[in-house]
Amino acid sequence: MSLVAVGTVAIDHIETPHRTVAGMLGGSATYITLAARYLTDPVGLVAVVGRDFPAAYKALIKGKGVDVSGLVTDPDGKTFAWGGRYGDDVNERQTLYTDLNVLAGFEPVVPDAFRSGRVLCLGNLDPGIQHAVLDQMERPELVLCDTMNYWIENAGESLARLLRRVDCLMINDSEARQLSGESNLLAAARRIRFMGPQILVVKKGEHGAMLFVDDALLVLPAFPVEAVQDPTGAGDIFMGGFAGSVARENRMDAEALKRAVAYGSVLASFGVERFGPERLLDLTHDAIEDRLRKYRSVVAFPR
Amino acid sequence: MSLVAVGTVAIDHIETPHRTVAGMLGGSATYITLAARYLTDPVGLVAVVGRDFPAAYKALIKGKGVDVSGLVTDPDGKTFAWGGRYGDDVNERQTLYTDLNVLAGFEPVVPDAFRSGRVLCLGNLDPGIQHAVLDQMERPELVLCDTMNYWIENAGESLARLLRRVDCLMINDSEARQLSGESNLLAAARRIRFMGPQILVVKKGEHGAMLFVDDALLVLPAFPVEAVQDPTGAGDIFMGGFAGSVARENRMDAEALKRAVAYGSVLASFGVERFGPERLLDLTHDAIEDRLRKYRSVVAFPR
Repeated sequence: MSLVAVGTVAIDHIETPHRTVAGMLGGSATYITLAARYLTDPVGLVAVVGRDFPAAYKALIKGKGVDVSGLVTDPDGKTFAWGGRYGDDVNERQTLYTDLNVLAGFEPVVPDAFRSGRVLCLGNLDPGIQHAVLDQMERPELVLCDTMNYWIENAGESLARLLRRVDCLMINDSEARQLSGESNLLAAARRIRFMGPQILVVKKGEHGAMLFVDDALLVLPAFPVEAVQDPTGAGDIFMGGFAGSVARENRMDAEALKRAVAYGSVLASFGVERFGPERLLDLTHDAIEDRLRKYRSVVAFPR
Repeated sequence: MSLVAVGTVAIDHIETPHRTVAGMLGGSATYITLAARYLTDPVGLVAVVGRDFPAAYKALIKGKGVDVSGLVTDPDGKTFAWGGRYGDDVNERQTLYTDLNVLAGFEPVVPDAFRSGRVLCLGNLDPGIQHAVLDQMERPELVLCDTMNYWIENAGESLARLLRRVDCLMINDSEARQLSGESNLLAAARRIRFMGPQILVVKKGEHGAMLFVDDALLVLPAFPVEAVQDPTGAGDIFMGGFAGSVARENRMDAEALKRAVAYGSVLASFGVERFGPERLLDLTHDAIEDRLRKYRSVVAFPR
């Protein structure tokens, strides 16, 4: 397996000033794998859903080339559900509800075919589940990990142990500040890398991302998108594009990781153009490479 | 005159969690000219101060090579005074007071030697004063203009007329959103350029800047600075560096304007490293070029 991702597979409810969509496919593992599969293959998904999860959604993910043999259905509960509302400024998000449901008792089982996976994405999830997946992997070449404020506050000890086991932490700027206790991101990065991960990616939403690796620093603005419909999942898509690019190149040096940031940004810029994972369903490699060229031109430092 | 700037010369009071400094030299014209003079010469300043303005401050600006023959002292009032407080996160600023004082009745007189100035910076100020300065100039090759939320709200009509007279508007992201009524910056830029200025620079503080010129777009992150002491004046320093670079090259094409963004960012990144304009007093050309090289490397799009 080239890339394995554990995370949530969710039923999302999303409201924007222009549109409300209920019962939509979502979740970190969904977004990560649907993005990564544009860059590498095979891609495997480890997650749990409940008895209410539409068979059509599972078929959709599988139909896009993702190995769903690690997607377990728990008949005793409902699928993890998340609801959010965006304001006129899409950067303002309000969480309406977070129902863990079957996620609460999830004990992940990594399929045999996944255990030799080269790149492992630990999507945002209870650190205990991230540990359990990592325990079952043989020897991934790169382990990437996401987390969020809830786990920083409520599972700090487990998260601290996890950070010593991962190669690359990928979190947003407010989480980096919270985790480190430093408001300046350079200071925050130094402190976080002291906690374990040699590689750190700080995601700044519409402001782009920062990559810290070895002594190198890359700061890349986001590809500017005018028609943002729904930013849900953009961070997970970024992780999928990043991890997919690394898996494709099969290189972990600074230059390869920088290219991975560029692919993560490009895929995320597509993702926000439509609701949920819709835009990830019909992309072409030409469209991705074309946007990468435009991106390069828009951020080109003057001679 | 290579570059002329009108704006405020102020007495600032600045509080941070670590230090409070009262009676400090500040103001948009101060920051613009102290930055610009690293890149071009001669640089002239048009502003008013009150009877309380320390002679040493005037001597300091003059000693740095800025022509202060346009700096008028109004004996009937006190110097424009501004007080601000920053939180642990330097992006959170609270204005403590804004005392217009002599600025309220300021009728600018542009010295004869300034009237043929090639690049004109209309620093943040009452649009009426910006108009009055522009009226006295012969035929500047590039007119740059800054403004702020207060003038957008309270002098909209005068500002609208001004926008039809300037080549380049340089405002921050929240002001661009307010002026245009658009939350997306690409949409905001289109609308603002329709109001007059062919060139638009949107300043995003620690997130960098966007330049819109002809059909070109440049998005450049800020040079990351760990030891931010005081961000006061960073936007004005950016304008000074930008305008100084354009004046030095004596070119207004997209590539020259992109380089101007880079110089504006570099000078601003120095400016925030110490309180007030302090860091602008002892820079060297070597230090500026060295940081420009580091900046190029930090934001270099991967091959």
